[in-house]
Amino acid sequence: MLSSAQQSFLSGIFSEEDISFSPEEICAYGGDSSRLFAMPWAVVQPRNVEQVQELLQFAHAERIPLFPRSRGTNVVGACVPQGGGIVVSSLNLNAIRDISPTDFVAVAEPGVVTAKLQSACAAKSLFYPPDPASHRISTIGGNVSTNAGGMRAVKYGVTRDYVLGLKAVLPGGQLIECGGRTHKNVVGLDLTRLFVGSEGTLGFITELELKLLPLPQQTASVLVGFSSLEAALHAASEVFRAGILPVAMEFMAREVLEALSAVTTAPWPEATRAVLLLKLDGSEEVLPLELARLSRVLELCSPSFLATGQGADEEALWEVRRLINPASFTVAPDKMSDDVTVPRGRVVEAVAGIREAAARHKLVTLVFGHLGDGNLHVNVMYDKTAGQLPVAKALKDDVLKVVLGCGGTMSGEHGVGMTKYPYFNRQIGPVERQLMRRIKADFDPRNIMNPGKAY
Amino acid sequence: MLSSAQQSFLSGIFSEEDISFSPEEICAYGGDSSRLFAMPWAVVQPRNVEQVQELLQFAHAERIPLFPRSRGTNVVGACVPQGGGIVVSSLNLNAIRDISPTDFVAVAEPGVVTAKLQSACAAKSLFYPPDPASHRISTIGGNVSTNAGGMRAVKYGVTRDYVLGLKAVLPGGQLIECGGRTHKNVVGLDLTRLFVGSEGTLGFITELELKLLPLPQQTASVLVGFSSLEAALHAASEVFRAGILPVAMEFMAREVLEALSAVTTAPWPEATRAVLLLKLDGSEEVLPLELARLSRVLELCSPSFLATGQGADEEALWEVRRLINPASFTVAPDKMSDDVTVPRGRVVEAVAGIREAAARHKLVTLVFGHLGDGNLHVNVMYDKTAGQLPVAKALKDDVLKVVLGCGGTMSGEHGVGMTKYPYFNRQIGPVERQLMRRIKADFDPRNIMNPGKAY
Ligand SMILES: Cc1cc2nc3c(=O)[nH]c(=O)nc-3n(C[C@H](O)[C@H](O)[C@H](O)COP(=O)(O)OP(=O)(O)OC[C@H]3O[C@@H](n4cnc5c(N)ncnc54)[C@H](O)[C@@H]3O)c2cc1C
Ligand SMILES: Cc1cc2nc3c(=O)[nH]c(=O)nc-3n(C[C@H](O)[C@H](O)[C@H](O)COP(=O)(O)OP(=O)(O)OC[C@H]3O[C@@H](n4cnc5c(N)ncnc54)[C@H](O)[C@@H]3O)c2cc1C
Repeated sequence: MLSSAQQSFLSGIFSEEDISFSPEEICAYGGDSSRLFAMPWAVVQPRNVEQVQELLQFAHAERIPLFPRSRGTNVVGACVPQGGGIVVSSLNLNAIRDISPTDFVAVAEPGVVTAKLQSACAAKSLFYPPDPASHRISTIGGNVSTNAGGMRAVKYGVTRDYVLGLKAVLPGGQLIECGGRTHKNVVGLDLTRLFVGSEGTLGFITELELKLLPLPQQTASVLVGFSSLEAALHAASEVFRAGILPVAMEFMAREVLEALSAVTTAPWPEATRAVLLLKLDGSEEVLPLELARLSRVLELCSPSFLATGQGADEEALWEVRRLINPASFTVAPDKMSDDVTVPRGRVVEAVAGIREAAARHKLVTLVFGHLGDGNLHVNVMYDKTAGQLPVAKALKDDVLKVVLGCGGTMSGEHGVGMTKYPYFNRQIGPVERQLMRRIKADFDPRNIMNPGKAY
Repeated sequence: MLSSAQQSFLSGIFSEEDISFSPEEICAYGGDSSRLFAMPWAVVQPRNVEQVQELLQFAHAERIPLFPRSRGTNVVGACVPQGGGIVVSSLNLNAIRDISPTDFVAVAEPGVVTAKLQSACAAKSLFYPPDPASHRISTIGGNVSTNAGGMRAVKYGVTRDYVLGLKAVLPGGQLIECGGRTHKNVVGLDLTRLFVGSEGTLGFITELELKLLPLPQQTASVLVGFSSLEAALHAASEVFRAGILPVAMEFMAREVLEALSAVTTAPWPEATRAVLLLKLDGSEEVLPLELARLSRVLELCSPSFLATGQGADEEALWEVRRLINPASFTVAPDKMSDDVTVPRGRVVEAVAGIREAAARHKLVTLVFGHLGDGNLHVNVMYDKTAGQLPVAKALKDDVLKVVLGCGGTMSGEHGVGMTKYPYFNRQIGPVERQLMRRIKADFDPRNIMNPGKAY
């Protein structure tokens, strides 16, 4: 709890509408998309760097925990103020400061919604590629702090690959500047990318310098089915072997197709057991040729069906992908989802292992996701009212075993937060964890930044 | 100096051919491509991780400085054992452990020469994109430790973007494993990329896991001249604006063209004042179309000439680029070269500033390099026997001022090493530098790894 002296000090930093101690108002900042919750002591919404500096100086001196938060769309509890403290929201720091078509750089405050930045770039024929499915509801600051991935990662990489520089305030109030507007930079240790994926544990980010690319003229997609997962993965290899690097390469395993057939008339024939969805981009002139070439490669892999689309037709192909979440709930009323990644060549093995575990626990799991980079989304479906929560948890645990057994990672893009925190030691050794904690202490010696999260 | 007890302990770790204390033998390890030199106390060439561990345990206990070294091609003195200590060479750690066409991962020891890895990948239709001009003479371990860049950075990024995981031994002898074989991974702080560009200051890298892409089928290039640098840069913008992301986009300023005309019959007409060299890649089918499209965009920018090439014809276009270094020496017998980067849109301003400084000091500078990412190579030409060394140094200093004044960085790809160490504070603030040093101390509390380098 904050003392009344602390409260009034804080009220001196922020104007009335940017600070609240009232339980009714601040409880909305106690949870995130993980659905975990803890009540904060206060919420502040700085409007400028000076306020952030004063806050971090004060909180450091008084040892008050701070919980950085942008849109709270992370699904791992990375924003939950557990143990109590002040939620520091980015939402008033939401200016796009610059989009430079000559430097190919965007400068934005952390609270800018990703899709908003992307459209502002597109208006200047520029492209900010990272595209988490949450791009309309999440922010650049959140994306950088979680190293968000997306569909386009196969060709374009993840958020990390687009962060050139940043400014952040450290506990104690010092503003640091890392990296800059240049596309290349090798001077000293890479503090910029240390912030990427650090989940609010090092400091509060106040500005980001992001790398942009020229905007591709057009996109086109292929939806293609196979009689087995093995056949689908073989086709995926053949695409790469032909020298084609698609923008996106998604897949859906059998259980997902079954769930989808309950909510939509599936475009694939009965005997289809796995579906791939691929996207290409390029110029108006060559894209149709590339699409034809991709189709030829896929046709040689004995697909059960194949559909291509551009423009509105392309959107229609992706509609099935968007229906996965609603379709999940026709299987069971509750969902425990996970985001794991295995080496690309071990997807078949991982899916088989997950299926085996699911059968053992008598629950259905839906496996789908970013095949192109081995990033699997695993929805464990269960019924809480039927007492299946412990079974679902045990299954989730087994999924992790399978994934780590395949040389995989427990998070491909969502991060660790609170929900994966208990599992951390299964993947990361004690020496490595200790190094991370020592590094954190270099930035935050009193452990006030998002304590109890990430590592 | 090593005591005889220390020498005999070391001789117990390494077999005879892998250790030397003899001045005649070890002096070859005292310098690197910076041409700086310091005599080491000993050179060791470990053959396995256990030897590296024993060495780092011993050196830590005895506080003996260690200088990691691969091929010594860095140009900033990053390998020079100044102050004395043991050079630890990667050259016996040169196995390619795995090239996986299903995982799209290569696993290699640090001493593997980059070009060797690239051909082994190409044999499996796989592509390791980072291409420093030194790719035939430098190693993966050196490239990662300097975050090497290359021509292809415009489209494919730099070494950093391809490091998925690594193993390293820390002072004290502990082996750590960071990252892994998965293409995506967000679990804890990013120790992997902290090693990238760290210039041997954190630990000794023993293994690297690298991301691969499908190998593009073909490449093609365009050599195009303009009547002014402004016109060349305008053309470069138009290329990007058309949504074209070339693999490479090099440029040569006027002084370079003049120097080249002394050693070759230049393919451009008299009135040419700046030349661009662009490379594209893609499939057999679409590449000719993309090349035609690129040419159309360039033709609209009033070039003084334009030549395109594929296959042997393409090689011929790049020949002029390779002649820059020999041509330099027709201007003056001595060269002081620099690798700086400015935001892409400020290249004209930077080149103008560099020219002004050169005129003030009455020396010729040749400016060329990776226009696509604002990475300029600046060759200050001078005559040592005419007493011009101090003038050249003063000019180099002014070049740095111009570059930092443009929001640039003193190193785009070569790193800091010893030669840029004195300038570090001009670019990086005291708080940031202190953070870097604290992080180093987390890995290397006794400062035995490459002391006095980088930051
Ligand atoms: C429907 C849906 C789809 C999703 N799809 C994807 C997907 O495809 N790919 C993907 O990667 N993720 C996805 N996510 C997860 C989530 O959207 C991402 O993790 C996103 O990056 C979070 O952004 P945010 O703005 O909501 O940040 P928050 O959730 O508010 O915060 C995330 C982390 O960033 C820290 N943080 C926020 N602002 C700052 C700051 N200024 N300084 C320091 N630290 C800060 C927080 O402390 C927290 O640790 C999805 C979520 C949902 C609900
Ligand atoms: C002709 C020429 C052209 C060049 N062109 C380019 C270019 O286009 N782009 C570019 O970026 N650079 C270029 N360089 C610079 C140089 O080639 C690069 O810096 C290269 O990455 C160095 O590799 P190396 O194997 O020679 O490493 P070294 O020079 O031996 O070492 C480089 C650094 O890595 C550290 N290191 C080496 N091995 C290990 C290890 N196992 N563990 C920890 N640290 C280690 C060393 O301590 C040192 O700090 C060029 C150099 C020359 C001579």
